[in-house]
Amino acid sequence: MTQPSIKHALSVTRESDFAAWYQEVIAEAEMAEESGVRGCMVIKPWGYGIWERIQQIMDGRIKEAGVQNCYFPLFIPLSYFAKEAEHVEGFAKEMAVVTHHRLVSDGKGGLVPDPEARLEEPLVVRPTSETVIGAAMARWIQSWRDLPLLTNQWANVVRWEMRTRMFLRTSEFLWQEGHTAHADRSDAMAETLRALEMYRSFSEDVLAMPVIAGEKPENERFPGAVATYSIEAMMQDGKALQAGTSHYLGTAFAEAAGIRYQDREGQQTLCHTTSWGVSTRMIGGVIMTHGDDDGLRVPPAIAPHQIVILPMLREDDGDAALLAYCETLRAELAQQSALGERVRVLLDKRPGKATQKRWGWVKKGVPLILEIGGRDAAGEQVSALRRDRLWRADGKVNFVGQSRGDFVAGAADALEDVQRSLHAEATARRDAQIERGVSTLDGLADYFAEGNRYPGWVELGWSRPTGAALEAVVAKLKALKLTIRNTPMDAPAPGGTCPFTGEPAVETIYVARSY
Amino acid sequence: MTQPSIKHALSVTRESDFAAWYQEVIAEAEMAEESGVRGCMVIKPWGYGIWERIQQIMDGRIKEAGVQNCYFPLFIPLSYFAKEAEHVEGFAKEMAVVTHHRLVSDGKGGLVPDPEARLEEPLVVRPTSETVIGAAMARWIQSWRDLPLLTNQWANVVRWEMRTRMFLRTSEFLWQEGHTAHADRSDAMAETLRALEMYRSFSEDVLAMPVIAGEKPENERFPGAVATYSIEAMMQDGKALQAGTSHYLGTAFAEAAGIRYQDREGQQTLCHTTSWGVSTRMIGGVIMTHGDDDGLRVPPAIAPHQIVILPMLREDDGDAALLAYCETLRAELAQQSALGERVRVLLDKRPGKATQKRWGWVKKGVPLILEIGGRDAAGEQVSALRRDRLWRADGKVNFVGQSRGDFVAGAADALEDVQRSLHAEATARRDAQIERGVSTLDGLADYFAEGNRYPGWVELGWSRPTGAALEAVVAKLKALKLTIRNTPMDAPAPGGTCPFTGEPAVETIYVARSY
Repeated sequence: MTQPSIKHALSVTRESDFAAWYQEVIAEAEMAEESGVRGCMVIKPWGYGIWERIQQIMDGRIKEAGVQNCYFPLFIPLSYFAKEAEHVEGFAKEMAVVTHHRLVSDGKGGLVPDPEARLEEPLVVRPTSETVIGAAMARWIQSWRDLPLLTNQWANVVRWEMRTRMFLRTSEFLWQEGHTAHADRSDAMAETLRALEMYRSFSEDVLAMPVIAGEKPENERFPGAVATYSIEAMMQDGKALQAGTSHYLGTAFAEAAGIRYQDREGQQTLCHTTSWGVSTRMIGGVIMTHGDDDGLRVPPAIAPHQIVILPMLREDDGDAALLAYCETLRAELAQQSALGERVRVLLDKRPGKATQKRWGWVKKGVPLILEIGGRDAAGEQVSALRRDRLWRADGKVNFVGQSRGDFVAGAADALEDVQRSLHAEATARRDAQIERGVSTLDGLADYFAEGNRYPGWVELGWSRPTGAALEAVVAKLKALKLTIRNTPMDAPAPGGTCPFTGEPAVETIYVARSY
Repeated sequence: MTQPSIKHALSVTRESDFAAWYQEVIAEAEMAEESGVRGCMVIKPWGYGIWERIQQIMDGRIKEAGVQNCYFPLFIPLSYFAKEAEHVEGFAKEMAVVTHHRLVSDGKGGLVPDPEARLEEPLVVRPTSETVIGAAMARWIQSWRDLPLLTNQWANVVRWEMRTRMFLRTSEFLWQEGHTAHADRSDAMAETLRALEMYRSFSEDVLAMPVIAGEKPENERFPGAVATYSIEAMMQDGKALQAGTSHYLGTAFAEAAGIRYQDREGQQTLCHTTSWGVSTRMIGGVIMTHGDDDGLRVPPAIAPHQIVILPMLREDDGDAALLAYCETLRAELAQQSALGERVRVLLDKRPGKATQKRWGWVKKGVPLILEIGGRDAAGEQVSALRRDRLWRADGKVNFVGQSRGDFVAGAADALEDVQRSLHAEATARRDAQIERGVSTLDGLADYFAEGNRYPGWVELGWSRPTGAALEAVVAKLKALKLTIRNTPMDAPAPGGTCPFTGEPAVETIYVARSY
């Protein structure tokens, strides 16, 4: 028996070339494109609409935690960086530096920086804002009454990247960065873990993207941090994507910036600070978690349009009645609530064939697509397509007919079911690709060998070496193109022996290829 | 009879030193502060909260007009600027230029740009994005079916300013910039004027700030534009503030970027483009329109908190009952709707004396402040202060007692009345300060002479000179520190003679000092 052949909407499949498939989804879903400016992308309406949804929901959760939004300067004077030695070492290789404040003609029809307008102190375009926010905190905090100080900003940052990939690694990207100051270690650590948990639940509930929250190994810490935590998601090619981080910074940044408070006993005391962020990288994670060979599938919680209605226009007298019916349907759906908000529904009246327009929305990943013809309008019917159940077993597109009343009444449930189904599908796939049977370095090499096209992650116990011993482990893994992702929170202590040191294993880690 | 003396919350009055008063409002209302980075400010939670409200409401209106948000690169290659000669001339004097992408140690504990990491082509930090968005439009537009193309971005921009003033003129500022492409002049002009009207109604309805919408004179056009329109608001010192602009760019930017479409007859045709923007400058306008000698007064539509409840805590057993009463009151108020949205109410439980906290919120300009003591709680009463009616005639703070039920039932009306009152007060003041009796250059000089401390605007008819004749007028006005603000839309043709050229007056203009 031959399988019915499905004519997928993309030219490249995930199986044939995952990297090319990723680029094709971004292009065909009209999410972003190369800008012509090195390492910077243009985020197009569909991609930016998803980011707006992420921003809106995350911002609500940030505010609920009592954190207040501010805005800090784009430029950071060089001297601010020089204060924090370890931090600058981590970033110094990849920063955009402003040296002039004016252009002049080069006499040949072009422009050059004006040598008369050289800055006395060059300015760095912020790669992250610990230094400049630390300086503000030092001004704002006097006493224990001012603590905790909880700030966040939504901003663009720049890290000069040699090899870029849209959404995953671009020289400029958009993010939020939370920065907080606390009276002591315990309060700062609680905030670090609160932000981590906020990211974990956001990824699971909103992005429908399962993640493992845990602590990064020492060698992967944010430059200058005492501890770095991350959420790690598994992409469909088995690689790990670090999708958000939260750092406990100890007192080093406070010392560099002079963030001190007078405690209840009148003593000047250093604050303990934290920082935490997620970025447009999350959108890359959504694509590689939920995309299929027909394009993107957007979880309803972040879909700019959750339902698109396509009238099958024929440019004849019947179109007026058809459009009136579709408008009634649109208005009824817009009155429904799903996932805690009003349903976002678009009536797409643009000229063009409905099937062509259908495939445009399929590739963009709209959760529910309705095609409405004159007969549907006359019979008070709708014909609905769930993006996550696109194909029937016989290879045909899986439209389902329903009465308008039934569809409208069930629309919220359908959207919530799409959200759940995407999460369940991604979780099942991720769980199936976690390998627990590897306990030696040779075993690791085998598991990640060329033949195993899309290996997942190896979960194993290790002895948590530090310093030079850790560097030796990292080097061994690097030779296999592997990294340690994190140590999951609250994992029970593993038994057995560390495959790297031969010492007793004390802690669980995930080892994986990564983005 | 002596006036009762009022002890105002600020140390400087508007009358004594308007510029110092402006700085004091910003500091005391905790809106923003100098950052230590030249020309860049830190926007603090109260200032940023107002910006978030402006963004949210403006963004809704932009989307309603069918404009889609995108995000374009922060950096613009020099060569993009060289394409548009007139445009770059207007901006070339004030741009931040990135020349290096890495730092190295200077061997003395400091950092310097790495000479090995000089960019082949320097990058300009965007002062505005016509050039880089034009390049994208050239890629996106093929046929008449792609038009109009309506895009907008919310972004930071940098214009190197020698003299900065918070919110009004900073090297980095936040704004939205709309960029649209159209098939012909008429469609582009309609969009230019739609944006202008959107800004006019937003200023009046949302900011409660009366403005005059009109066309700027030729010498004040955006570099490269065919026509520039603005909204102009009168500050309390009589100076004009340009609070938003909309430009019809003709085909010059399209030609430079190659934005062409195939028309219905198959001909390659240049697009007509527009751009329009408002920025954090609007917040400066709100301060200088509504502030008084006790601080800011925020119009309810953009107030982060519209109502603040201050429990008069005494750290005794009665506080639990008082807090429970305040929480009930908060919850009831949060259920009300005013100005089309749920009421934003804060219960301020921070430690500290209620009167001290009261003056903090007075200076921030919260529209309604409630102080609730144990007796109010026991008697189901509230004691309410309208920020725009702060003082009684006898010099006492104007608290008004009401039953809780009455206050809650009337809260939406009260907020809407504050919004209307602020607008009416500002409009009456503005109208009273428009002088129509001046028709000669000497008359202008007299009106704006030193003795007249806060002159307003002079409305007069002129002959609309162009080229060298206009330059001569501009020079005469400049000698009096005056500028032409705009020609109001739809104004009837004035009679009489142009005071500058002696020719018949054909058009009305406003002449004013300005920010």
